[in-house]
Amino acid sequence: MYRDIPQGPESEEIRRITREFEKEFQLKMGFHMAKHLRCQSDVAFHVYDMNPEAMSRFQAACSTKTKSNIGLASSPADLASKSSVIVTVLPESAHVKDVYTGSNGILEGIRKNTLCIDSSTIDTSVSVDVSKQVIAAEARAVDAPISGGIMGAQAGTLTFMVGSQNDNDFEQAKLHLSKMGKNVVRCGDLGAGQAAKICNNLLLAISMIGTAEAMNLGIRLGLDPTVLASIINTSSGRCWSSDTANPVPDVIATAPSSKGYSGGFKARLMLKDLGLVANAAKDTKSPLLLGSIAENIYRHIAGNQTMADQDFGVVYQWLARGS
Amino acid sequence: MYRDIPQGPESEEIRRITREFEKEFQLKMGFHMAKHLRCQSDVAFHVYDMNPEAMSRFQAACSTKTKSNIGLASSPADLASKSSVIVTVLPESAHVKDVYTGSNGILEGIRKNTLCIDSSTIDTSVSVDVSKQVIAAEARAVDAPISGGIMGAQAGTLTFMVGSQNDNDFEQAKLHLSKMGKNVVRCGDLGAGQAAKICNNLLLAISMIGTAEAMNLGIRLGLDPTVLASIINTSSGRCWSSDTANPVPDVIATAPSSKGYSGGFKARLMLKDLGLVANAAKDTKSPLLLGSIAENIYRHIAGNQTMADQDFGVVYQWLARGS
Amino acid sequence: MYRDIPQGPESEEIRRITREFEKEFQLKMGFHMAKHLRCQSDVAFHVYDMNPEAMSRFQAACSTKTKSNIGLASSPADLASKSSVIVTVLPESAHVKDVYTGSNGILEGIRKNTLCIDSSTIDTSVSVDVSKQVIAAEARAVDAPISGGIMGAQAGTLTFMVGSQNDNDFEQAKLHLSKMGKNVVRCGDLGAGQAAKICNNLLLAISMIGTAEAMNLGIRLGLDPTVLASIINTSSGRCWSSDTANPVPDVIATAPSSKGYSGGFKARLMLKDLGLVANAAKDTKSPLLLGSIAENIYRHIAGNQTMADQDFGVVYQWLARGS
Amino acid sequence: MYRDIPQGPESEEIRRITREFEKEFQLKMGFHMAKHLRCQSDVAFHVYDMNPEAMSRFQAACSTKTKSNIGLASSPADLASKSSVIVTVLPESAHVKDVYTGSNGILEGIRKNTLCIDSSTIDTSVSVDVSKQVIAAEARAVDAPISGGIMGAQAGTLTFMVGSQNDNDFEQAKLHLSKMGKNVVRCGDLGAGQAAKICNNLLLAISMIGTAEAMNLGIRLGLDPTVLASIINTSSGRCWSSDTANPVPDVIATAPSSKGYSGGFKARLMLKDLGLVANAAKDTKSPLLLGSIAENIYRHIAGNQTMADQDFGVVYQWLARGS
Repeated sequence: MYRDIPQGPESEEIRRITREFEKEFQLKMGFHMAKHLRCQSDVAFHVYDMNPEAMSRFQAACSTKTKSNIGLASSPADLASKSSVIVTVLPESAHVKDVYTGSNGILEGIRKNTLCIDSSTIDTSVSVDVSKQVIAAEARAVDAPISGGIMGAQAGTLTFMVGSQNDNDFEQAKLHLSKMGKNVVRCGDLGAGQAAKICNNLLLAISMIGTAEAMNLGIRLGLDPTVLASIINTSSGRCWSSDTANPVPDVIATAPSSKGYSGGFKARLMLKDLGLVANAAKDTKSPLLLGSIAENIYRHIAGNQTMADQDFGVVYQWLARGS
Repeated sequence: MYRDIPQGPESEEIRRITREFEKEFQLKMGFHMAKHLRCQSDVAFHVYDMNPEAMSRFQAACSTKTKSNIGLASSPADLASKSSVIVTVLPESAHVKDVYTGSNGILEGIRKNTLCIDSSTIDTSVSVDVSKQVIAAEARAVDAPISGGIMGAQAGTLTFMVGSQNDNDFEQAKLHLSKMGKNVVRCGDLGAGQAAKICNNLLLAISMIGTAEAMNLGIRLGLDPTVLASIINTSSGRCWSSDTANPVPDVIATAPSSKGYSGGFKARLMLKDLGLVANAAKDTKSPLLLGSIAENIYRHIAGNQTMADQDFGVVYQWLARGS
Repeated sequence: MYRDIPQGPESEEIRRITREFEKEFQLKMGFHMAKHLRCQSDVAFHVYDMNPEAMSRFQAACSTKTKSNIGLASSPADLASKSSVIVTVLPESAHVKDVYTGSNGILEGIRKNTLCIDSSTIDTSVSVDVSKQVIAAEARAVDAPISGGIMGAQAGTLTFMVGSQNDNDFEQAKLHLSKMGKNVVRCGDLGAGQAAKICNNLLLAISMIGTAEAMNLGIRLGLDPTVLASIINTSSGRCWSSDTANPVPDVIATAPSSKGYSGGFKARLMLKDLGLVANAAKDTKSPLLLGSIAENIYRHIAGNQTMADQDFGVVYQWLARGS
Repeated sequence: MYRDIPQGPESEEIRRITREFEKEFQLKMGFHMAKHLRCQSDVAFHVYDMNPEAMSRFQAACSTKTKSNIGLASSPADLASKSSVIVTVLPESAHVKDVYTGSNGILEGIRKNTLCIDSSTIDTSVSVDVSKQVIAAEARAVDAPISGGIMGAQAGTLTFMVGSQNDNDFEQAKLHLSKMGKNVVRCGDLGAGQAAKICNNLLLAISMIGTAEAMNLGIRLGLDPTVLASIINTSSGRCWSSDTANPVPDVIATAPSSKGYSGGFKARLMLKDLGLVANAAKDTKSPLLLGSIAENIYRHIAGNQTMADQDFGVVYQWLARGS
């Protein structure tokens, strides 16, 4: 049974909506995010997932003490009718459109002033469009895509890049987002969170491939990879892809490359983000020479089933061993 | 008058050889490096430059107190005959070959055990070849290319990437290099300094263009460039090209982009280094997809006289304003 | 006054719909195509353009003898209600969707068995979707995008690449298309015309840039461009971009490059087609390394107002003169 | 025993020099070329190969009637001392330099007025340099690289691209080259043959990859490859790589792709030529965006032992099956 609770900025009623799309998001990303929210909340908490099993699993995973408060919604509309704050994490633009504006979607049940936080990474134009429909329904919307991956979700150290109409909506959203992450940054107006996220990931993809090319070249020239990385990391070539997630195995013990390219940011998810970049570049007529090659390298890599599911640093292996 | 001085690892007799190639190196890079060496040395000090004016200018710039010790050599061979430590900084592989192995070159005058430190950035294969000829003449050689630019040369904060046959040669070279720079790192065997330098600069070029693409896209999507840079700089896209030398004017006050793309690393020098990268990639059969596009973008940019002499961050302008 | 005429596969009643989008299509492409259709037809002929002036201009341009037969429709729906064959040429996916499925669109007035021929170059997925809606309305649809440009339209020498459900629809469409073009080819099922068109234009863009790179390199190596082109044109490098539309001025007298890059295929239209290619590549997960660079080169070029409206062979100038 | 023969432009004394480098050249390319020369010549004929077995094999293969005339030289210098026309085909710049200017090289034995025809594909700058040394020795030199592959060599249908100081040298060379090939074209001054050859092969590599990308995209969009190719081949995308050597198996029966990518132009030889292109582009500051990606795609492909030895159309497989 779902219990509605009193409104107000102090209330921490949060509802989680997801739709099954890929295991790591359904079972891990959303799961961990919802747990962090739940653990730090005393108010009623409703979840929705198109897969009932995912919901029961979440319910089961919560402690005895809080479990009684968790409600399982029957649809996005149902959940919206019971919530004053809603967090969504969905795989693609089409899912966000559907969950918000489709049949039995959030807009059918939404209450006045409800704050909708969409943490999906989707097309900026779709994000802005959906947010405007939420606002037209007298509710509030922010886009808050995530950086930090599953490990960040588990540890509660995610970064949220937020686009909002005003500071007040941002501050409201921050109250909740800060339970799941360490950094919550306002990037600008509606859609600015999406824009910042894809710009970062564009540079990330380029840096990673660049690091892979530089490390591969250095190794073939006879350099010790650990020595080379340490030089780059104190020089003008330094970047996150080199000093934190170096794609050459055993250069950085905690990097996915040192764990068989597992536990990181999957190549096919990077490909997805680079697709969003390509759409934004086309809309804004922005030339992307390195960015477009990066997208197509990951398209090539994702054509291989094994590499598609490995950390995107696997581009080093792709380069190093030849086709 | 040239005075020869006693040998030994403690002696700090240093001779500077350059050949005129480009003003910033002859007048600035080499000039500042030699000044730092001179200021911290009590022993005899000889310089050589194919342009006599450059030598007199250096002599004039040194303090009255030390001036009397500065000798002007008549050729590389002449200088070599008077030195136990030699530092060379030259523009291209061909110059290094000529200064060492050509007529009246260093090898014609070199003394047993003299330590040759070549700080030019040249082809790894040429560097190794020349070093081996020096060693065959019973002297010693290290390659020690520089990172840090003219500002680093002036401030004495350069980084030297050193390749040497053994730790002893490296330690010897470090005594002198540490007067001109802050970091002196051994990268490996002969040629390893060159290899590390070009690998770093390959990644640097890619990161810079990547930063330019990401910033340009973000700005066209409506983001404030300073906000976008601050987000990237605390996320996985962070890199030196974004947090220290951001190519968008007025994002980072000290970056060349905020000073009309002046005072940095010239686009045509980056192009030169990417040419060395291309040679090394061909020799080692290393694929460079982003790296080869980067080289050709700088070739396109360097076709424009004005941009050729601007900081390599000018790639942002090239992207942003259309062709 | 619009007169309806008897149905039947032999009747050659043709209606032309366009919407104003760009002068060269409204005034030239569509205009010439419609004239060829009109001149070889005795039956009633209706036209529609959202710009009434464009319709009067067409009416005025037709001969006294046939003018009386030309009807001006008041909307796509109106035109559809009077036609058994409809030809559309529109600029973008959104226009085709709107003209067929929007308010007062063709589907609101369409008659049973009417043959809809869409000669727009648009997204394959949108084309297939609209065709299926036409078929669901018990009419018939083929996609028949055009190759050959304005000069081909004027001369009646266009190539039509046709996608159709069956051979019968194709043969019907061919009766009409062969009045406007020389080659009418069935490429496969619905959407196959679009697919073939963009694959051809992908290769065309790559060949043109490749020709520009090869000619520019040869000229800088001291070759006479006419001699180089003649060698390439009898060797394995030969292609349409080299032997027919060589981008170096005065190599081929009839090429747009020899007429100030005028009268050809505009750079920004090539950019538009490469955008369709990018969408199709994303949908089908097809890597496009050269294709993606080609798209972004044209995006860079189209950022320059002058070059955007020049023949796409202007990429030679972009390469040759530096940025 | 070697017999010297009378000089004169009418004499057809020809000597073949090769050095062992790769089977297909030593055993096939040079072998077939020499056979064509030999068969149409009555005069004395000397061959040299660093591998004596290769020379005996050639001698054995010649008919009883002519065999007695074939002389086996003991060195390039020896051969030069007995010849008035010399044809060389060698793998790399370094070999040409060595065979002409090295110890026991041609220049040590060369006679006044001897015509040296170098059919190797090497760096333009090296080719010009060696030719000038030949001319300084009062002999004559032309560069005449080959297009057409082993099948062309066997059939005697090669194309020769010739650079010469004057028309007379070209006409002289043509007398001999036309026995081995169908087209003999003067491209310009010394080095122009090399320049034309690499410009053609640059465009060839780009066209082939472009064809592979377009065919792969079309196939994934549901098109029949034979239909797609036939459309492209009558449209603006047509090129040799599409209409003669289509990289999709079974589209063109005689193409290497239809024979397991055998019998064509090996991927690693294309990579070699693209390396020459890269050198020339660097020397002349010519930007090559597609060309540089093409080079690196073939570097990636050549990293795979099997594909390295297949026809360069194998890039289609590389794209189609994912990494």
